[in-house]
Amino acid sequence: MKVVMGLSGGMDSATLLGILLEQGYDVHCCIFYYGSKHNKWENIAAQSVFEFYFKQGFSITKYMMDISNIMKVFKSNLLLHCGDIPEGYYNDKSMSVTVVPERNFIFAGIMAGLAESIDANAIALGVHQGDHYIYPDCRKEFIKALDTAIFLSSNCKVEVLAPLINDNKITILKKGLECNPQVPYYLTRTCYKSQPVSCGKCGSCQERLEAFCELGIKDPIEYEGGQ
Amino acid sequence: MKVVMGLSGGMDSATLLGILLEQGYDVHCCIFYYGSKHNKWENIAAQSVFEFYFKQGFSITKYMMDISNIMKVFKSNLLLHCGDIPEGYYNDKSMSVTVVPERNFIFAGIMAGLAESIDANAIALGVHQGDHYIYPDCRKEFIKALDTAIFLSSNCKVEVLAPLINDNKITILKKGLECNPQVPYYLTRTCYKSQPVSCGKCGSCQERLEAFCELGIKDPIEYEGGQ
Repeated sequence: MKVVMGLSGGMDSATLLGILLEQGYDVHCCIFYYGSKHNKWENIAAQSVFEFYFKQGFSITKYMMDISNIMKVFKSNLLLHCGDIPEGYYNDKSMSVTVVPERNFIFAGIMAGLAESIDANAIALGVHQGDHYIYPDCRKEFIKALDTAIFLSSNCKVEVLAPLINDNKITILKKGLECNPQVPYYLTRTCYKSQPVSCGKCGSCQERLEAFCELGIKDPIEYEGGQ
Repeated sequence: MKVVMGLSGGMDSATLLGILLEQGYDVHCCIFYYGSKHNKWENIAAQSVFEFYFKQGFSITKYMMDISNIMKVFKSNLLLHCGDIPEGYYNDKSMSVTVVPERNFIFAGIMAGLAESIDANAIALGVHQGDHYIYPDCRKEFIKALDTAIFLSSNCKVEVLAPLINDNKITILKKGLECNPQVPYYLTRTCYKSQPVSCGKCGSCQERLEAFCELGIKDPIEYEGGQ
């Protein structure tokens, strides 16, 4: 069965991919370039995660989707042309400046359009509980509304799957480590900053580090100044 | 009050623009290039319609939005890389091959993201009754679901307006002719084919010609082989 998903190169989408492939799906991955500060680095991570599974013979296809030109008029500190990424805890109100308006909505629309074009019946999103506080387009009620909208606009052909919606970063990591093959977290990238080595200080890095710490495992990626 | 809309260069969006400006809105127009066969010509029409109002001192801004690269993997005969545009009546089943999957959904998401970025509270769509038969993303139930999804993903900031939803091509034309200033239909372009002069034979041209005929007015644009 075909499914379309967004592969960002972060922990959540890498885990989603691992789970879908383990379940036997034929997975079509959209790798988006939308002009965020960390986009260049997360795209490299996404490619590496893709290749990890591709080389093992899984049924997996990738599509590079560049929408950076339209996001040049969008306002968000996550984008290259706007202000700085704040440091500190992920749930801090300051992190709300990193919301890219309608990002998930636009990604979902593109994925659904691709799904219809290749006769896939579903798109899968890696949204989870930890995202709900800051990001309105990651909340359960939005995902439900999105599912209805996409189902109707696709003439009842495409549905929205969000298998991690009740998980948090810790349970996602746990699921990924239990996958066969284990999700290659050493290839993933989570940091929001525009630098090759993860900063370890932004909300995104902190949340990731906490998840590894909680499970008593060392995060396999490199951090500026160590962990 | 700010509103964001898509200006395609066709009759419906030109009328929507005329109505919104008459109502005193500060209108922000997205002109999309998505790789359809008629896109080059409708973009020229959209620019002309924009300039018509801009030169008269209306509060109007334009944004060129190119998403043609992502639609290269989409399947629709309306797109440059796919099959031919059928001729004949608009409601014929053959015209369903011109549906671009999720086009309105994706356009709406981009417009909503722009709306949030410029502190606009609404996006406006030119969808109408005549579109409902073939295009699932023009139907009332979809527009309602879209409104809910965008309202939630924008943190309750952006709503969807569809003031022409109960109109057809004839009542739209009537409304545009009654606008002050009258909507410049001589600058608009409706044809689906990839040629500078409208064909007069595709479903889109036929529906337009019927509307003018019904009101006893000559369509002011040129057609291949005359009207």
